[in-house]
Amino acid sequence: MNIEFQLRANLKCSGSLRGTVSPSEITEFVRACNAGLLKRGAPPGCGAKVVWWQVAGSEGEEIWLEIVSDRFVRAHDALFRLKKEFGKFLGRRRVGVRSVEIEEYEIAVEWDEAGEREAGEGEAEAGLRLRLKKLPFVKEIKQEAVAGEKRQLRLSLAVDEAGLEQRIPDRLLKLLEEKKEAASWKGKSEHWELLFESEKKQFYFEKDPTEEMARRGWIKHAAGRGQWIFGPQATRIFRALERVLLTEVCKPLGYEEMIFPKFVPWEVWKRSGHAKGIYPEAYYVCTPKTRDPEFWEEVADYYKVTGEVPREKIMQKIECVGGLCYAQCPPFWVFLQGKTLADECLPIKVFDRSGTSHRYESGGLHGIERLDEFHRVELVWLGTKEQVQEHAKELQERYRRVFSEVLDLEWREAWVTPWFLAQEGRAGLAASKEVGTADYEAVLPYSGKWLEFQNVSVNGDKYPKGFSVKLQSGAELWSGCSGVGLERWAAVLLAQKGLEKEKWSARFRAAAGLGGEGEREGELPEVFKFL
Amino acid sequence: MNIEFQLRANLKCSGSLRGTVSPSEITEFVRACNAGLLKRGAPPGCGAKVVWWQVAGSEGEEIWLEIVSDRFVRAHDALFRLKKEFGKFLGRRRVGVRSVEIEEYEIAVEWDEAGEREAGEGEAEAGLRLRLKKLPFVKEIKQEAVAGEKRQLRLSLAVDEAGLEQRIPDRLLKLLEEKKEAASWKGKSEHWELLFESEKKQFYFEKDPTEEMARRGWIKHAAGRGQWIFGPQATRIFRALERVLLTEVCKPLGYEEMIFPKFVPWEVWKRSGHAKGIYPEAYYVCTPKTRDPEFWEEVADYYKVTGEVPREKIMQKIECVGGLCYAQCPPFWVFLQGKTLADECLPIKVFDRSGTSHRYESGGLHGIERLDEFHRVELVWLGTKEQVQEHAKELQERYRRVFSEVLDLEWREAWVTPWFLAQEGRAGLAASKEVGTADYEAVLPYSGKWLEFQNVSVNGDKYPKGFSVKLQSGAELWSGCSGVGLERWAAVLLAQKGLEKEKWSARFRAAAGLGGEGEREGELPEVFKFL
Repeated sequence: MNIEFQLRANLKCSGSLRGTVSPSEITEFVRACNAGLLKRGAPPGCGAKVVWWQVAGSEGEEIWLEIVSDRFVRAHDALFRLKKEFGKFLGRRRVGVRSVEIEEYEIAVEWDEAGEREAGEGEAEAGLRLRLKKLPFVKEIKQEAVAGEKRQLRLSLAVDEAGLEQRIPDRLLKLLEEKKEAASWKGKSEHWELLFESEKKQFYFEKDPTEEMARRGWIKHAAGRGQWIFGPQATRIFRALERVLLTEVCKPLGYEEMIFPKFVPWEVWKRSGHAKGIYPEAYYVCTPKTRDPEFWEEVADYYKVTGEVPREKIMQKIECVGGLCYAQCPPFWVFLQGKTLADECLPIKVFDRSGTSHRYESGGLHGIERLDEFHRVELVWLGTKEQVQEHAKELQERYRRVFSEVLDLEWREAWVTPWFLAQEGRAGLAASKEVGTADYEAVLPYSGKWLEFQNVSVNGDKYPKGFSVKLQSGAELWSGCSGVGLERWAAVLLAQKGLEKEKWSARFRAAAGLGGEGEREGELPEVFKFL
Repeated sequence: MNIEFQLRANLKCSGSLRGTVSPSEITEFVRACNAGLLKRGAPPGCGAKVVWWQVAGSEGEEIWLEIVSDRFVRAHDALFRLKKEFGKFLGRRRVGVRSVEIEEYEIAVEWDEAGEREAGEGEAEAGLRLRLKKLPFVKEIKQEAVAGEKRQLRLSLAVDEAGLEQRIPDRLLKLLEEKKEAASWKGKSEHWELLFESEKKQFYFEKDPTEEMARRGWIKHAAGRGQWIFGPQATRIFRALERVLLTEVCKPLGYEEMIFPKFVPWEVWKRSGHAKGIYPEAYYVCTPKTRDPEFWEEVADYYKVTGEVPREKIMQKIECVGGLCYAQCPPFWVFLQGKTLADECLPIKVFDRSGTSHRYESGGLHGIERLDEFHRVELVWLGTKEQVQEHAKELQERYRRVFSEVLDLEWREAWVTPWFLAQEGRAGLAASKEVGTADYEAVLPYSGKWLEFQNVSVNGDKYPKGFSVKLQSGAELWSGCSGVGLERWAAVLLAQKGLEKEKWSARFRAAAGLGGEGEREGELPEVFKFL
C-alpha cells in the first residue's frame, strides 16, 4: 500500500524565538534533521522531510511547520523526533517546547479496488464508498482517481498530540487494511473441508422436534426472544446427554470441573479479541450508576403509576459494563492471567457447565437449533503445542465414538474457519492446518439441512498471549476448546430418532434412566397436566 | 385519608352550542347531574359537583367547566360520567362531544406526618419533603399547614384525557399511600422470629474461608464486581453440596428437574411484582437495536483505532429489554401462564439449577457470602393451600436433617419478612403465619456474624394470580419456593469446619468423592501449579 503523510503542526515554545535563534540557525537545524534524523531507519531515498517552516505567534514564540513523509518514517513519528531534537537545540538557549498543536494531518493511500470489482462493478464500488463514509478521527474522506486503474483515498484527520501518541494514524491504516481484506471476502464462502463422514443410519422421524416437543408440552417458548423453558421431559434428555459427555469424554480424558463466570466485562473481551467484532450479536449487560434508592425512586414511581417500565429513563441511569457469556472460555482465562504455569501440571483439562450463553441471533423462529439463550458444556485444554494438538485428536476420537456408537447418529466432521476469527469478523481467512476448528454436523431429516452441533478447536497461542500466561520452560503455551451445546445435541438426536424412547440407543436410554443395557425400564417424567 | 379533587376541563364539541342549546337548558342539565349522576354510589352528602361552567370558543363550540369532588366520586370519574351524559343530551340536537382537554387538575390530600415525627422531628420532615420532591405526572407539589397538627399536600397534575382513562390520579394516590407506609417502616427492623435452633457444634476454623481459598488458589476473583472463578477444588465442594441437596431433599420429596430461563424480560418482572422495586439491585440486559453490521461498524472501528470500547456510543445503539435472573422462579411461571392445571397432577415439585443469578450488591469485599454473581438451586412447589403448607413443612424437616446430620452445622431458623415483599421494597410488612419466609442462618466463627444461607417460602397465591394460572377445581392455587445458594452453603460449611477434608462429616466427604462411609479415600483435585 503506497502511502503519503502530510502534517502541519505548531510547536509552542516557552519564550520568543526572535533574537534567541537566527533564521539561518533554524534553516541549518532543519537541513540537518532532514538529512539525518528524519531519514533514520528508512531505506535510501525514503523517510520524512520538513518542507516548510516559519516563526510565528504574537511574540514569535511559535514555530509552524509542515512535514511530508512516506510510510517509512511516518510524519507523526517525524514530528516527535523533531520535537525532542528541537527541545535540545533550544535548551541551550533556555527556551523549551511547551506543547504541539496539530493544524492539519492528511493521509493519502493508494486504494486498489480490484478485489471488489470481481464481485460486480457498480455495486461493489458503491458498497466500498458506503463503508468508508465514516471513520473514527477522520473529518473528511475523499476518493480520487489517479494514474490508470488506480484510485487514491485522502483522509483528513481530526487528531491532537495525545492521539498521535496513541498511534491513531497507524491504527487507522491497519483498520483500512482490515476493511479491504473483509471486502475481498465478501460473497466468498467460509472455509469448509470434509474430514470424516459416518456411516448411514436409520432415521425414525420426519418432523421438527421443537414443534413436536412444544405440542406435547415438553417445552414452552419463554417470554424472551429465542428462549425456551424446558419441562421435565426435555430436561431429562439434556441431563442424559450431559451424562454421556461426562462419562464417555470428560472423565476418561481426565477433565476436572471448574465454574467460569457468566457475566463478561469489557476487559475480558478486549483480551480475547471479541471487542473487535462481537457487537451486533452481543447481549449487553448494564449496571446501575448508583445503588442509592432515591436515585431510582422516580423509575419505580413511574412504573407504579403507569404500569409501564420507563425504559428510556432507565437508560440514563445505567452504564454498559460488558455482556453475557458468548464464547464461554474467555472469562476462564482471568484465572491464569499474568501467571507462569509449571511444566509438570500440563496438559491441563477443565470444563464448565455452570450457566447459560446468550447471542442476539437473526430473527425468525428456529426452534431449539438456533437460540438466543442456550446451554453449553465448555471443555478447555492447555499445554505445549504438541500436547494441545495431540489432545485435540484424542477428543475427536472420543466424540466420534459418542456420536456413532452411543447416540447412533449420522454425522460428518469438517475443517472450517476458526471460530475466534469468525467471531472477530474475520471469517473467510484461510485456515491453517495447525490452528483451527473442526465442526461436527448432522443432517436434520425434517428439513434435509445439515446442522453444526459441536466443535473442537485448536486456538494456538491466542489466549495465553491475550491474557499473558507463560510456561515455566519458556516454550509456547497453546490451548484448545470445545463447546457442547445441549440444545444442539438434543436437536440432532431427536430429529433423527424422534421422541419415542424405544427408538433411542440402549446406551443413551441407560444414561437417561429410561432402562437400557440391563437397567429397569423407566418413563420420562410427566409432571404437569393441563385442562 | 381525606382528599379533595378540583378539575377544570374543556369539552370540545362538533358544532356551536349557541343557538343549539339555551343557557337555561344547560343550567338545568348541570343541576340534574349534580343532584343525581355525580352523586351515584356515594354516601349521602358526598360525591362530585360541577361548580362552574361557561360556553366558550370562537364559535361557541366549547364548554368549559370545573368539577370539585371528594374521594367517593373522584372528579375524573365525574368528568367521564358527565361527558357521556352530555353527549346524549347534545345528540338529540345533532352535536357531539369531540374531545376533552384537561386544563387543571389539583388534588389536595391530608398528609399526616405523625408516623414520621416519632423518628425525630427535624430530619423526618425534611426526609419526607425530599422524597416528595418529584412525582410522575405532577407539575407542582405544595405542602401546607392546615388546622391544628394537620398538614395538606396539594398536587398539580400534568395529565391528559388518556392519562385519566389510565387512572393516573388513582394510581398516584395509591403511590402516596405506599410512600407513607414505607416511611413509617423506616428505621424499624424487619420481622424476625426464632423458629428452631440447632445444638452447638464443634468449629475447626477461625479464618475467612474466602481468603484462605484464594490463598490456596482454589478460587480467584474474576474480572467483574463480586464475581469469582471457582477452581477444581472449590467446584468439587459445590457439586458435592448440590449432590447432598439432590439425594437428601429433591429425590426423596419427588422433585423433577426443569430448566428455567435466565434472562428475564420486563414482562415477567411486571407479573412477578419485581418491576415495583428491583431497580437499584438489578443487572440490566440490553439488546442491539439492529443486528445490521453496518450499524455497528463505527463501534468496532472506534475500538480498533483507540483500543477502548466506546460505551456511550453503544448506549445509543441498544435498548433495555429486562434483566438477569434475580429471584430465579419468576420466569418459570411463563410455562404455566394462562393455563388451568388438572387437580390430579398436584402437588407439583420442580427445581432448576441451570445458571447464574446476578445482583448489584452494595460495594466492598464480602467474599463468597455476598456476590454479584452466584449459583443457586431453586425449588418450586405448587398445589392447594394445604398441600403447599404441608410440603413446606416436609421440606423444612429435610433441610434440618441435612444441616444437622449431613453437614454437621450449627444453625438456626427464623420466620422473617417474605422475600417477595422485601424485593418489592415492602420490607417490614407484618408477616402472616400462613404466607412467609423461613430463613436459615448459621454463625461464621471468623466474624461472629450470622449469615442467612437458605430459605423456604410459602408465597400464597401471588404467582398463580400474577401469571393467571388456575386450578381445575376452582380452588386457590398456591405456591412456594426455596433457594439454595451453593456459595452460601459452602461459606457456612467452610467457615465452621475449615478447608481440611478430615474435619468434614463422613457423609459429606462421601458426596464429594473424598472417601467417607465405606468409600475409598480421595483428594480434592490439584490441576494448576504456578511458579
